[in-house]
Amino acid sequence: MSSASRILVVGSVALDSVRTPYGEAVEALGGSASYFSFSASHFSKVALVAVVGQDFPAEHREALERRGVDLGGLETAEGRTFRWRGEYMAELGHAHTLETQLNVFSTFHPHLDAQHRRTPYVFLANIDPDLQLEVLGQMESPKLVLSDTMNYWIARKPDRVIEVLRRVDVALLNEEEARALAGETQLVRAADRLLDQGAKSVIIKKGEHGALFRSRHERFITPAFPVEALTDPTGAGDSFAGGFLGMLARAGEHDGDTLRQAMACGTAMASLAIESFSPRRLIETDTGEITTRVEQLHGMVHFDLRPMF
Amino acid sequence: MSSASRILVVGSVALDSVRTPYGEAVEALGGSASYFSFSASHFSKVALVAVVGQDFPAEHREALERRGVDLGGLETAEGRTFRWRGEYMAELGHAHTLETQLNVFSTFHPHLDAQHRRTPYVFLANIDPDLQLEVLGQMESPKLVLSDTMNYWIARKPDRVIEVLRRVDVALLNEEEARALAGETQLVRAADRLLDQGAKSVIIKKGEHGALFRSRHERFITPAFPVEALTDPTGAGDSFAGGFLGMLARAGEHDGDTLRQAMACGTAMASLAIESFSPRRLIETDTGEITTRVEQLHGMVHFDLRPMF
Repeated sequence: MSSASRILVVGSVALDSVRTPYGEAVEALGGSASYFSFSASHFSKVALVAVVGQDFPAEHREALERRGVDLGGLETAEGRTFRWRGEYMAELGHAHTLETQLNVFSTFHPHLDAQHRRTPYVFLANIDPDLQLEVLGQMESPKLVLSDTMNYWIARKPDRVIEVLRRVDVALLNEEEARALAGETQLVRAADRLLDQGAKSVIIKKGEHGALFRSRHERFITPAFPVEALTDPTGAGDSFAGGFLGMLARAGEHDGDTLRQAMACGTAMASLAIESFSPRRLIETDTGEITTRVEQLHGMVHFDLRPMF
Repeated sequence: MSSASRILVVGSVALDSVRTPYGEAVEALGGSASYFSFSASHFSKVALVAVVGQDFPAEHREALERRGVDLGGLETAEGRTFRWRGEYMAELGHAHTLETQLNVFSTFHPHLDAQHRRTPYVFLANIDPDLQLEVLGQMESPKLVLSDTMNYWIARKPDRVIEVLRRVDVALLNEEEARALAGETQLVRAADRLLDQGAKSVIIKKGEHGALFRSRHERFITPAFPVEALTDPTGAGDSFAGGFLGMLARAGEHDGDTLRQAMACGTAMASLAIESFSPRRLIETDTGEITTRVEQLHGMVHFDLRPMF
């Protein structure tokens, strides 16, 4: 790819085997960096830094390349690709992990080249917070950094997770992660606590209930896009991140209005992701469908402020 | 009261004893018709049809009258007032009922006088669906009827609950009730099923996650107003109903735009209700505070549709 990437993602590329009440996928392309990249690629050019094993199928690499994702930072290490096996029960709220094989991912250390370091928008997916800080330390004045995390790291390295929150511009957490990290069960208060702990801004993901953005000066809520054909929730959060950061990178600014539109784009991308197993829908969609979904979301939340009394 | 009421509510007036992580209330004024009436009274004139026992405190009657609620239909029967005792755990999602004493409510039959029957807007709170149908049968061409229900009736009289859904204009259900009645765990599909079963339109209440409106032609989502001072969730749903129907009665029309604004009013009233034990906040609030809350909600959900690609 000739043009420089606007977005850098550091995360996992995996082979997922998932069962839901609507079917199953075996060794499908998965991982936070994959879902994020497919999603963000509709908005802006993405460079991916991750590791796979020697068994990583060429077709998956080609699928990413066809979406224009720069795979210069996708290392192939000796051994097998990271694998995850899980299932979702009827209400689809939470994944039940059956097996995690870290394989080559267990010794992953992100290597950033000169071009990676100059990328203006960065997504630190849910890897070890020490690795996230290592990446951050190598970046040359990025315009905006978005981070994600997971309960595993909050339980083991809470101080490092907080350190990441302090150093990035926007921190993504799901409900349980926000509650655990803040030590507060009520979500509204948990968001306040995370700001008190030094976060500049947070997005709390609530799955089928949407997401909320909170900073000192902004508070914004986006409901989830209602999906009739919900098939597999895997990757919804990373797809949200891709639409959100993709839109910000595309707009090149991050004022309140742009952040709000970016939340809507994230919501639209998450809704597409969960309509199929693997990132298939994210790959097949186009700017027309994404625009329609953002417009439909607008139509569902908009109301006029009219005098009432 | 001289002027005719715009809204009729038929439901329960109770004495509630509630414990939450933030304190407790003993024998406070409760019941669906009480919360609804206080809430709706800020928008329009309400007439209440319910029953209390001879032990019902005069101060509660006076509190309702001070808000202009017409108590001509509040019967005093021999015996004790309906009592409910419950508690909420840390996450405040669900009430755990410790004791229900139906008392005079167990033999309640709503008596509607000529003026009640001509009221244009009607709220059938969560009483026996047979009683709801009895009330409906007595109404003289109301402009809009809103119903509520509860799992208890869905388990015992599902056909009658469906019959109510078919005959009212808008049916309120919470998530669990919608799933149970539709026989479908996914909420988006559950809403579709309820329309297939004959409902004209439904509002599914999701507690801290807001509410969604669904009819054949309209789909609208309102997130909950984020409350920092959450104290006691009791009455949130009935307060929502009060703000929603109150606004519709005030506007005198129910086109899509008005329904959307009414959803916002319901959301604002529910957020006030849960900031105190008993309906205290609903009683003390005023049109200025309600307007501010609706404006804040608008500010949190609004985004501009701008060209993205």
